[in-house]
Amino acid sequence: MSDIATGQPADMATDGTHSVGIVTPKVERFDEPLPLRSGRTLDSYELIYETYGTLNADASNAVLICHALSGHHHAAGYHSEDDTKPGWWDACIGPGKALDTNRYFVVSLNNLGGCHGSTGPQSINPDTGRRWGPDFPVMAVRDWVKSQARLADRLGIERWLAVVGGSLGGMQALRWSIDYPERLGGAAVIASAPKLTAQNIAFNEVARQAIINDPGFHQGHYADHDAYPKQGLMLARMLGHITYLSDAGMRDKFGRDLKTGTLSFDYDVDFQVESYLRYQGEHFSSNFDANTYLLMTKALDYFDPAADHGHDLARCLAQAAARFLVVSFSTDWRFAPERSEEIVNALIHAGKDVSYLQIDAPQGHDAFLFPIKPYVRALSGFLERLWQEREAG
Amino acid sequence: MSDIATGQPADMATDGTHSVGIVTPKVERFDEPLPLRSGRTLDSYELIYETYGTLNADASNAVLICHALSGHHHAAGYHSEDDTKPGWWDACIGPGKALDTNRYFVVSLNNLGGCHGSTGPQSINPDTGRRWGPDFPVMAVRDWVKSQARLADRLGIERWLAVVGGSLGGMQALRWSIDYPERLGGAAVIASAPKLTAQNIAFNEVARQAIINDPGFHQGHYADHDAYPKQGLMLARMLGHITYLSDAGMRDKFGRDLKTGTLSFDYDVDFQVESYLRYQGEHFSSNFDANTYLLMTKALDYFDPAADHGHDLARCLAQAAARFLVVSFSTDWRFAPERSEEIVNALIHAGKDVSYLQIDAPQGHDAFLFPIKPYVRALSGFLERLWQEREAG
Repeated sequence: MSDIATGQPADMATDGTHSVGIVTPKVERFDEPLPLRSGRTLDSYELIYETYGTLNADASNAVLICHALSGHHHAAGYHSEDDTKPGWWDACIGPGKALDTNRYFVVSLNNLGGCHGSTGPQSINPDTGRRWGPDFPVMAVRDWVKSQARLADRLGIERWLAVVGGSLGGMQALRWSIDYPERLGGAAVIASAPKLTAQNIAFNEVARQAIINDPGFHQGHYADHDAYPKQGLMLARMLGHITYLSDAGMRDKFGRDLKTGTLSFDYDVDFQVESYLRYQGEHFSSNFDANTYLLMTKALDYFDPAADHGHDLARCLAQAAARFLVVSFSTDWRFAPERSEEIVNALIHAGKDVSYLQIDAPQGHDAFLFPIKPYVRALSGFLERLWQEREAG
Repeated sequence: MSDIATGQPADMATDGTHSVGIVTPKVERFDEPLPLRSGRTLDSYELIYETYGTLNADASNAVLICHALSGHHHAAGYHSEDDTKPGWWDACIGPGKALDTNRYFVVSLNNLGGCHGSTGPQSINPDTGRRWGPDFPVMAVRDWVKSQARLADRLGIERWLAVVGGSLGGMQALRWSIDYPERLGGAAVIASAPKLTAQNIAFNEVARQAIINDPGFHQGHYADHDAYPKQGLMLARMLGHITYLSDAGMRDKFGRDLKTGTLSFDYDVDFQVESYLRYQGEHFSSNFDANTYLLMTKALDYFDPAADHGHDLARCLAQAAARFLVVSFSTDWRFAPERSEEIVNALIHAGKDVSYLQIDAPQGHDAFLFPIKPYVRALSGFLERLWQEREAG
């Protein structure tokens, strides 16, 4: 079940029974310079994160959640008693859920370049005393993983039981397995791809052009002009949203239902699906930073770990030591099952331990957010196995 | 072979051998009011059109071409000796081609609401003495067909040998078979659909919002403000263009090829596909009217002939008397083969004469513009059969 208005999976636990309850974000500051893929360096930065569950004595029960394009650190629970909207993956994180917080210590952070509390375009550049804005370094997935490794150090986690992520988050899980093979037991790569296709990049480019050409953008310095590229961000989100849903899912949800019962014969809203998309775009553009949106789309475009290995993904993954769970969804056309199977084939070719499931689900790319039974079972079973091996090992 | 720069099939006949040669558009004026689906009436109007080949004595060799969203009357040949760009379907219209002008008299018009010479938003509204702009009536496919029937009357064509169209043009061919069953021998419905899905409408809505929210739009009265929603139209076209191509086609054509050989790590063009899309958007937005674009997308959204027949397409098509050729293309995801098959199934259910081909082609929706061999053979065979029957009958 999903809430049409927010696009969030409906909260199954408003009574708190299966909720992690009220959570308080924490912030860690890092003063060791972070060298970036772009050649630039971030001299210091902060990461905002949340944790759910309790880290055990030997720090062997920690699971890292990596977020997707518009995600953030608030993955589960509520921020206050009055808070009605749980974290974005509340359906899967909590006592007795896929990521069972009775057993695991779950860590979820906002990535660098984000707009929810970690250092990003809205932060002050210490060199200038002004907002970074568009001058914030373009981040690559490997940069995020490096910053996540430092957060792990800070939390006393030498090795994650697993790193888990959907979409752009799955790319981070994959990158973890390549860059820090000894620091994770398992990688769950969900609704992801080893690199974007030309069509994926093309959609991202239209979204970027919508933002950049908005007269409120001011070359990214909108904050200095008391302006905001709201329409551009709205368009970007409307377009993105179409690619998160499936054709069949949209047909089932909206069909050709009219908003008012009759055709307008003007250029205003006629169909429910138009109204829904406008609401989504409107809501998102009031709550997200445009420079962050650009940065996230570029990180997606640039991700291509095989490029450093002669474009041979199997060779690239040869260095991985994790067990892998790869999950795709039947109606996901943004990162179709074939894209997950590229990863699976490369892993098999490289002789790695990989389980693959294609889940039959109507929600398109968004399916990774939903507690779909075989998907939940796969996630919990994967973690259970890693947990048993840890005890045996 | 396609010309990447223009998206046009490459001209196979610049030497004139298989070209209709130089053509001159004609204009017909109509003073009988045209009642429209919207409830409004167009008191008078002009239609611009071209003809290729010669109408025979009993006017039995006429074929009508209906254009798609951004099409126009100039379907074949050249406008002058210096003209290097042939009409949009030159690959299929001409001596010895699929629509063989040695035998057939081919008529191609610009639809009402267009921006290439027929009455539309850029025309003067006789009631106000000013440009129609956004006040030009929203057109439905049935309105176009009615205006085309009047053009046929004017040309002395009681009955078309066939009405042929791709995409939105295919919807017109289908509508012809329903509204004027006795006035056509055959209907060729290519890369089309019996109605748009929610996803189709959603893409159109994003395109409309891009145009409408452009500060140069001025509620459609841009001409009065010496302005133009160029960025919005550019975005609309970039987005549209992605849906005209296939994922596989884009992969083959562009892959992840870089524009300059290295990643920029800023928000400018990195990949060839971005550069290509920008060029397409730029070129189109310099040559098309924004109000016409809005109008064409609404005509697409509204098309749903079964709606007047209890949403039963077979019942709706029961009144048709034409022979049908339905063609789809394997990689077309804008109007996928399944959408053509909805038409075919309804025709079979209604006991009609229908041939159906799904053509294996990498070009996506755009494939209908290309002279792909089995497709050309199907078109020419279909016309040949209609022609033989006419002689026999």
